[in-house]
Amino acid sequence: MKECKEQNFDATGFLPSFLGTFERVKGNANFYGMKQLPQMLELGEIANEYIELMFPGRCGRERVGLSLQEILLDQLNLVSSGLMNQIFLALKYEHPEEEEEKLKEKSRHIINSINALLPQIRLNLKLDAKAGFEGDPAARNIREVILSYPYMKTLVIHRIAHELFRMEVPLIPRMLNEYAHKETGIDIHPGAQIGKSFFIDHGTGVVIGETAVIGDNVKIYQGVTLGALSFPKDACGELIRGARRHPTIEDNVTIYSNATILGDITIGKNAIIGSNVWIKEDVAADTMAVIQEPKLTFRELNGRRR
Amino acid sequence: MKECKEQNFDATGFLPSFLGTFERVKGNANFYGMKQLPQMLELGEIANEYIELMFPGRCGRERVGLSLQEILLDQLNLVSSGLMNQIFLALKYEHPEEEEEKLKEKSRHIINSINALLPQIRLNLKLDAKAGFEGDPAARNIREVILSYPYMKTLVIHRIAHELFRMEVPLIPRMLNEYAHKETGIDIHPGAQIGKSFFIDHGTGVVIGETAVIGDNVKIYQGVTLGALSFPKDACGELIRGARRHPTIEDNVTIYSNATILGDITIGKNAIIGSNVWIKEDVAADTMAVIQEPKLTFRELNGRRR
Amino acid sequence: MKECKEQNFDATGFLPSFLGTFERVKGNANFYGMKQLPQMLELGEIANEYIELMFPGRCGRERVGLSLQEILLDQLNLVSSGLMNQIFLALKYEHPEEEEEKLKEKSRHIINSINALLPQIRLNLKLDAKAGFEGDPAARNIREVILSYPYMKTLVIHRIAHELFRMEVPLIPRMLNEYAHKETGIDIHPGAQIGKSFFIDHGTGVVIGETAVIGDNVKIYQGVTLGALSFPKDACGELIRGARRHPTIEDNVTIYSNATILGDITIGKNAIIGSNVWIKEDVAADTMAVIQEPKLTFRELNGRRR
Repeated sequence: MKECKEQNFDATGFLPSFLGTFERVKGNANFYGMKQLPQMLELGEIANEYIELMFPGRCGRERVGLSLQEILLDQLNLVSSGLMNQIFLALKYEHPEEEEEKLKEKSRHIINSINALLPQIRLNLKLDAKAGFEGDPAARNIREVILSYPYMKTLVIHRIAHELFRMEVPLIPRMLNEYAHKETGIDIHPGAQIGKSFFIDHGTGVVIGETAVIGDNVKIYQGVTLGALSFPKDACGELIRGARRHPTIEDNVTIYSNATILGDITIGKNAIIGSNVWIKEDVAADTMAVIQEPKLTFRELNGRRR
Repeated sequence: MKECKEQNFDATGFLPSFLGTFERVKGNANFYGMKQLPQMLELGEIANEYIELMFPGRCGRERVGLSLQEILLDQLNLVSSGLMNQIFLALKYEHPEEEEEKLKEKSRHIINSINALLPQIRLNLKLDAKAGFEGDPAARNIREVILSYPYMKTLVIHRIAHELFRMEVPLIPRMLNEYAHKETGIDIHPGAQIGKSFFIDHGTGVVIGETAVIGDNVKIYQGVTLGALSFPKDACGELIRGARRHPTIEDNVTIYSNATILGDITIGKNAIIGSNVWIKEDVAADTMAVIQEPKLTFRELNGRRR
Repeated sequence: MKECKEQNFDATGFLPSFLGTFERVKGNANFYGMKQLPQMLELGEIANEYIELMFPGRCGRERVGLSLQEILLDQLNLVSSGLMNQIFLALKYEHPEEEEEKLKEKSRHIINSINALLPQIRLNLKLDAKAGFEGDPAARNIREVILSYPYMKTLVIHRIAHELFRMEVPLIPRMLNEYAHKETGIDIHPGAQIGKSFFIDHGTGVVIGETAVIGDNVKIYQGVTLGALSFPKDACGELIRGARRHPTIEDNVTIYSNATILGDITIGKNAIIGSNVWIKEDVAADTMAVIQEPKLTFRELNGRRR
């Protein structure tokens, strides 16, 4: 960004009252004076490198004269270092009093746990890609799906962020998923549990809530919401954080575009939910639920339309 | 971008007819030969630095040994210089004949007016963040909301762009909001008036039109449209630009996902509008409007589903 | 991305099983060992330069002392080189055994064919911009539309990608459109045929399928789906790739927000399709189809709402 040399802006009226806004709710909406925070930009780059670890060669980077093993170890080291540093910053944010050495050790432990899960995650991602090819007649081959379909990017990130969420890493899981959301328009909370062979076609506007549970071979389309119907509160009227409030989608379910499924309900296995359905009660297994043909009003238009 | 040395493309067929396309509607779809235009990329960077001004430390940049006051003044100077330059380019675009010195003076005046508003904008943004924490059981704390929720990014940009819109700065307000739209999927026209403590959950697909008016403590979900029903035209059948045509949403209203609210109507205070509702008439205060349980057709599925 | 010097991550448990995931489905979900692939990042930059070729000056880059002709030739050379290289990589991916010289020649031929089409594409884009100005009362002038409306970015990319699709270039057309999808939330398959003077307002969530056909002067709003109702299969139950399955939208049709139009049906000329309509049968010309006022349940809310 070009910086203008003249500094003649009027800060006299601005400064005292702006500084004043830092005093009123000190400690909850401010980051100033805190230890360095995890960085969204950095997490985005790390996420992209995880995608490259999962599908080496996908980004089109040339790597001459290296074996697959060398490439994978290089890439593993790159993402591990990057993510470990971000996890350290997040832990430091949550435990500012803790010894740095201890937090570093904890970060390294978390990274090693994630690394041990990566083979299974990669197998799942290959099944996700296969599901996309088999579920979309516009797909020419599996590689096209991996290279260009947005849900693949979201799922690489989600499947890693979900494990970090389970390990109770602060901030990072949600930031990773918001990076995926920004890139793809698919908003999956890192808490959501997703089975094998998951396919999201198009994806823009999809929202999957924190306590949603999705089985195997589920296919959903753009604009589908798996949301909450109401928010449990405690005796003082405060929201209970993390309480079960989202749907369970069993194996082999298909949910068409813009369907809204709300609350702690179950869509039974093999069910098909039609476009634009709005549902807040269980759907039995092997059932198709579609809205009745909406009664349309047709009116003949005379003369110039505009 | 790598550039290939060989320049042997066939421009002979291309050039004359391509040049021809510049002659036909000269002066409305062309920028060539005009003064330099405001730049979307630069505006995006400036927008990001305004976010950092509002929540210093949020981006994770380290700043050692500086007081809060020094950080704020540095940051104020950075965004003021950048935005003033873009405003100058926009004014120059609109008034190509005007003396540059006059336009610079006007740009500086606009920036000083914006700067004087920043403390109030920051207070509003803190209320917006608090509204997100209180309205979403998936939020762990206010800082997570500020760091990762897309609506916060949109609102920082909107609250500044709206003031530029009120000062009738050309091009820039809309470009800023389209930057926010690109980043978050939330499309708020800079003309829209938004009250205190506004929360948009998820946000993808939200559209808020130019003449919409939103009160305090309003909460909306993904896919909500506050749109126009018809476009007023003048006696010659031309669109009347800027005419009132969008909804007024009063205080404490909640609008659930994918509801569509159209026209110059009023949703009264404390009202709740259900998911997928499609409405073009006033809703009284203290009223809940939900679509009747859509009649679903359930059909048992036999045999293999696919 | 900062790289940590210590390389003490636990790769012993990770490596053998991760390597194992490369062996199981070798050749369909892996890119390792293949020739270099087309690159999404590079294609994004090329797409942006095509936008600048279509509307020179739009990005705000200064170019002193060059004639329009010189600017256009420079820009043509830049995009031609870049895209030719990506096409070459895509052809090499599909025909790994073919002589490189032959593939280069084919790439050059494709680029020359595209270049010959650019004047017509530019004329169409100017009509698209004009349609936006005439269709949206919030637009101040055509230049604002070109500078900031997301559909313009999508259409520059689509109108080029569609030609590449017709020439059967592998991978690139879909990757280009997914870049546009990421940037704008508008997902148009490169196979879709789009007439003159097309306007998409807001755009987030729009999905237009591979075999959709759109006439002239069509206007659509955010969240509109032109999708498939079912997928034709061959005798073995395999999806038939590329079969006709999406709607035909005739001239002068307007489709309001979040309408879903499914299957190989026809919306006749001058028809108006209302918000949230869900339709899978033909609509006659000169007809307006809106959902009946949804019956809303209104319930008075007593006491404290939250």
